[in-house]
Amino acid sequence: KRKKTKTVTTNKIKKPVNVAITGAAGNIAYSAIFRVASGQMLGYDQPINLKLIDIEPAMNALKGVKFELEDCAFPLINTITITFDLNVGFEECDYALLIGAKPRMKGMERKDLLKDNGKIFKPQGEAINTVANKNIKVLVVGNPANTNALITMHNAPSIDPKQFTSMMRLDHDRSIAQVANKYKTSINEVKKVIVWGNHSNTQVPDLSYCEVSGNNIKDIINDSWYENDFIPRIQNRGAEIIDARGLSSAASAANAAIAHMRDWVLSANDWLSIGQISNGNSYGISDDLMFSFPSICSNGNYEKIEDVSMSEKLNDYIKITEKELIQERDSVLDLL
Amino acid sequence: KRKKTKTVTTNKIKKPVNVAITGAAGNIAYSAIFRVASGQMLGYDQPINLKLIDIEPAMNALKGVKFELEDCAFPLINTITITFDLNVGFEECDYALLIGAKPRMKGMERKDLLKDNGKIFKPQGEAINTVANKNIKVLVVGNPANTNALITMHNAPSIDPKQFTSMMRLDHDRSIAQVANKYKTSINEVKKVIVWGNHSNTQVPDLSYCEVSGNNIKDIINDSWYENDFIPRIQNRGAEIIDARGLSSAASAANAAIAHMRDWVLSANDWLSIGQISNGNSYGISDDLMFSFPSICSNGNYEKIEDVSMSEKLNDYIKITEKELIQERDSVLDLL
Repeated sequence: KRKKTKTVTTNKIKKPVNVAITGAAGNIAYSAIFRVASGQMLGYDQPINLKLIDIEPAMNALKGVKFELEDCAFPLINTITITFDLNVGFEECDYALLIGAKPRMKGMERKDLLKDNGKIFKPQGEAINTVANKNIKVLVVGNPANTNALITMHNAPSIDPKQFTSMMRLDHDRSIAQVANKYKTSINEVKKVIVWGNHSNTQVPDLSYCEVSGNNIKDIINDSWYENDFIPRIQNRGAEIIDARGLSSAASAANAAIAHMRDWVLSANDWLSIGQISNGNSYGISDDLMFSFPSICSNGNYEKIEDVSMSEKLNDYIKITEKELIQERDSVLDLL
Repeated sequence: KRKKTKTVTTNKIKKPVNVAITGAAGNIAYSAIFRVASGQMLGYDQPINLKLIDIEPAMNALKGVKFELEDCAFPLINTITITFDLNVGFEECDYALLIGAKPRMKGMERKDLLKDNGKIFKPQGEAINTVANKNIKVLVVGNPANTNALITMHNAPSIDPKQFTSMMRLDHDRSIAQVANKYKTSINEVKKVIVWGNHSNTQVPDLSYCEVSGNNIKDIINDSWYENDFIPRIQNRGAEIIDARGLSSAASAANAAIAHMRDWVLSANDWLSIGQISNGNSYGISDDLMFSFPSICSNGNYEKIEDVSMSEKLNDYIKITEKELIQERDSVLDLL
């Protein structure tokens, strides 16, 4: 006769983690914070101390965001801190979404944009270096995201460069959606999309390995659609949305940020595009760039996929986006 | 020897349901739609046809929202329709969030606000009556929500009045959060809060049955805090947020709408405050008002809790909010 085993459910409550979000009074953050607080980023069993960071003049607006967060009665929220002091905001930080950035003003040169943003991200890197947990996971959303992430990383030398990433997930998910639409199938049927390089209009969306319902689409893909419709649409989707809404993408950018961090922390079952430090000469890309490579997430880490082969034409495109990232880096060398 | 049974996982995919959202180009909807699409309202196994409704001049902005929804690559989204035609938007509708409403302009009388909003909700009720599924669940969020819900219900006579509700969940969750803060405890420890009546500053937040960590707080509650801090804070919280943000609550209102519908559909483990038809003479409230009563959700239905006793003072407060709802109804009688 088998002995009946008594099941004891411990239902142990996890220790709260510290999540910092910059630009917290802005539109993208407003679309992200409540979803993070609801548990969609780190799981429905993970209590959170929210550290909402913005510049001093935004503190009153941020107080309003804090009130609204309280009013949601989110069970996972342990504490909510609002601050313009980076050393308070990043203290013992486990996860950071760096969303705040200076937008490009009319008539502003890209070089000036890079320098102005550098001045935001350098002190954030320094604060992270000094007060954050050493195993912090950082996602840079604020544009130009790749170079902002590079600046942040350089100013936090005590932390493994792999823990700094820049967001390519919006481009990645846009690519998946366009393929699903083209092949009249559901999102879940589309796998192994890649977006290489910079989150700018030099980015290289790559469908060479893309599978629809388990079948590689290389043989059925219409080259003219890929070249003349798909690539430009992904590259210019941001502008298409501004044209329609009169405002830039906020909710979809927030969604991509949450998906990026969630999959990094909790794993995912598909290839992802992650802006990451290029060191290691993969695919012939120069060292010391924040470059998007195809990646796999598991066990709280991401790993670059190393054995993707590509056409000469794709390689030419990749050289263009690499060149742009080198130029971006050259214009902020004094901040690295 | 025991025979080994082969386990067959069917993993059956549910049939998509139709979810209509009005005011879909507005701020509250922008905070709600993406969370609905992510699965937070109806569950992570429920595919959705989204029907986004707004007025004709908002169609371009709404197209931008549709683009952003596509770009999120939500696995649960089956189709996205944008329309200003109510008969298209509510066709075979299973769930409706009626968010769009005319805001109160400076110098506008409440009576005019009621009439102008009535003109929005009457045709929506008519369309729901004609083209929606008969088991539709409707939540009215747009203010004055209770009377707007009453108008909608009256114009959809083929549908059970119980399927029309108005949102009190934001007030309810605000009450929970304030109690948790007062007693330095977590949200999950606070149960059995009630908010009676109208979603306006006559609402009656009631802690007579409130439990903190399983203990009724009646004996420890500080009457002066309850009367002079708690009640006014809940009644005026909306204004407090506008003061801080410079904008009215959007994300917290969206969160409350999602929580209201989620608990109605998927059940909940606590008392909830639900604006519902008052028929039945519960607590001596007149028939034919959309009045918030304490309720329990289970099996896709809500039931009014009938046996709550109350102090004379609370009863007096409830008479005031009832009177306001009667006056609101009287000013829109021609729309009922």
